[in-house]
Amino acid sequence: MRTSRLEAFSDGVIAIIITIMVLELKAPRGTNLAALMPLLPALVSYVLSFIYIGIYWNNHHHMIHATRTINGGIMWANLHLLFWLSLVPFVTRWVGENYHAALPTALYGVILLMAAVAYFIVQSAIIKMQGSGSFLAGAVGRDRKGKLSMVCYAVAIGLAFVNHWLADALYLFVAAMWLIPDRRIARAMETNPNGD
Amino acid sequence: MRTSRLEAFSDGVIAIIITIMVLELKAPRGTNLAALMPLLPALVSYVLSFIYIGIYWNNHHHMIHATRTINGGIMWANLHLLFWLSLVPFVTRWVGENYHAALPTALYGVILLMAAVAYFIVQSAIIKMQGSGSFLAGAVGRDRKGKLSMVCYAVAIGLAFVNHWLADALYLFVAAMWLIPDRRIARAMETNPNGD
Amino acid sequence: MRTSRLEAFSDGVIAIIITIMVLELKAPRGTNLAALMPLLPALVSYVLSFIYIGIYWNNHHHMIHATRTINGGIMWANLHLLFWLSLVPFVTRWVGENYHAALPTALYGVILLMAAVAYFIVQSAIIKMQGSGSFLAGAVGRDRKGKLSMVCYAVAIGLAFVNHWLADALYLFVAAMWLIPDRRIARAMETNPNGD
Amino acid sequence: MRTSRLEAFSDGVIAIIITIMVLELKAPRGTNLAALMPLLPALVSYVLSFIYIGIYWNNHHHMIHATRTINGGIMWANLHLLFWLSLVPFVTRWVGENYHAALPTALYGVILLMAAVAYFIVQSAIIKMQGSGSFLAGAVGRDRKGKLSMVCYAVAIGLAFVNHWLADALYLFVAAMWLIPDRRIARAMETNPNGD
Repeated sequence: MRTSRLEAFSDGVIAIIITIMVLELKAPRGTNLAALMPLLPALVSYVLSFIYIGIYWNNHHHMIHATRTINGGIMWANLHLLFWLSLVPFVTRWVGENYHAALPTALYGVILLMAAVAYFIVQSAIIKMQGSGSFLAGAVGRDRKGKLSMVCYAVAIGLAFVNHWLADALYLFVAAMWLIPDRRIARAMETNPNGD
Repeated sequence: MRTSRLEAFSDGVIAIIITIMVLELKAPRGTNLAALMPLLPALVSYVLSFIYIGIYWNNHHHMIHATRTINGGIMWANLHLLFWLSLVPFVTRWVGENYHAALPTALYGVILLMAAVAYFIVQSAIIKMQGSGSFLAGAVGRDRKGKLSMVCYAVAIGLAFVNHWLADALYLFVAAMWLIPDRRIARAMETNPNGD
Repeated sequence: MRTSRLEAFSDGVIAIIITIMVLELKAPRGTNLAALMPLLPALVSYVLSFIYIGIYWNNHHHMIHATRTINGGIMWANLHLLFWLSLVPFVTRWVGENYHAALPTALYGVILLMAAVAYFIVQSAIIKMQGSGSFLAGAVGRDRKGKLSMVCYAVAIGLAFVNHWLADALYLFVAAMWLIPDRRIARAMETNPNGD
Repeated sequence: MRTSRLEAFSDGVIAIIITIMVLELKAPRGTNLAALMPLLPALVSYVLSFIYIGIYWNNHHHMIHATRTINGGIMWANLHLLFWLSLVPFVTRWVGENYHAALPTALYGVILLMAAVAYFIVQSAIIKMQGSGSFLAGAVGRDRKGKLSMVCYAVAIGLAFVNHWLADALYLFVAAMWLIPDRRIARAMETNPNGD
């Protein structure tokens, strides 16, 4: 099975997910700043989710690029990832309307955690098919960043019930970790590409 | 006529269908578990429809992959299939809000049955064009799985008016049948690829 | 400028147009046939618009296939066509809710007429660039079907204010004219491909 | 990193943005001209935004076409551009419902300004990577049109609070400037492609 159609289909679904979120930004009733202000939390959660989906698209791009052929298992693992990503607009909307509440904040983390797990499954299925000596296996290494992200999500889910700002800070931290390339990590990767 | 643009267009439509369903998962009014619970049936019907659309995308991929050229009849048969698939979000929404009711449960089966019939028409049109000795004709064989699915849908439509759980079980069974590769069938296919 | 990206972009927009129309089929409030019945006009108008968009996709496919390069004028003429097609979901929704009213029925024809005019402009721009001896110029010939369609739309717009069924019949007639290949016309085309 | 997937993803997002705007054109309640009239401002703002997105697609097409490879920075600069474009449907809806109000008119300009800045960043990142002797650097030159657009947007944002018609006129002027090729500029470009 070729990867090209998997890539095209995933791109299509991710492009739609990243764009339909904006449909949830309802036009304010009034026309002054006071009417616009209540939209701010929705806008902030939209920006955060946009960045997360962008990170997934970027990483997915690189992962599939290192893959020539796929099998049925990988295809379904990929659909499983797209499923969790497709729930991001739903939870973005809920947390955008209720950013101060514990449960929406926690559920945002649950969806991010499940998407991270689903991504890990796709990655593992590709590495299993290619063998541990493959390019992707080398590039991923111990996958510290991926595992740290999952731990952060899990901690954030718990913290959401203590203080939602702590959970929000963790969500921001994980996004920043993927967005801003760490010079030290980059140097370490250069001398030890396997991340050991 | 090339198959590439038919493939790209079908991929686009299927990617949109599978993604816009999530727009129907409206954010709950409250922020506690009690407010989230009523969404559960909608989520379950979303998951089931996501799997069905995923199966169609996967099978469609393989069918078109075994096809070099198409004619006007195949193109319209394919649009006919996309039409029935495009109604899946509508019926998913209805059954998600009324999973206990007979008519929505039955209509879900009607849409699935019509999509299966439409798929059968596309497949037959391609085989007719290619001839019975073609690769696709061999791979499809007697198409027991396809025919069994149609029988299941028809029975489920009737059962929806007796007890909706019976119909739901049949919908799950058909999805599982396509999702989980049957080892015995796979073995039989290996020794007798035509499925006779 | 290459035609491939124009083709891909047009395919994307047309795929979205044909699919988002189904978002307008709102799930009925009740769960019996009486609750489903009011949706029938909306479903019928959806089917008709689905066929029209399908016809445009098909014809657009052939037209662009006969074109190697495009210029800025063709690109904007194509966007102009996509603009009118993008209004089809809007007018489909309106006429689906008010099929018995004159103005929505007439506006449906106006949008179809403008799309036909826009298509004619794209076609003329390509033929002008390629020269009258080109393959597309030969295939289009006098473009009787295209001109007859425009006349039908114009007549239907007027008839909508007399009796909406007459306008509806004309819309159906034009769709059928493009959908069902006329054997006599096909024969005539074979002996005289220019349609003179 | 190849540009092909960046191009495909951007095309997908832009195609969705340009199409979902029409979902905001709600079908009128009544069926006469009086019911249709209130939609006119929404339709006008839709047309203007459609043209703007079309211009961005066209220019983006040319910019990426002059690029072989991209890096992580360009990829994120491109996502940043798509982010601001994704807010166009939101602000189009708001200004369409409140075209006479200062704040929506000004916010429309803010989104356009931010998109123009984001486009400028992508362009600068590509030129920086390619070097000042590259084809794109030559084609862009001093980028007078781009800079004039940004000035117009900034002025329009201020004018929105004086008289919204003046801001609207500036938005129209910028769109026309990109839409209508200026013969004198074209001549100047021919003799001095760097725009100096």
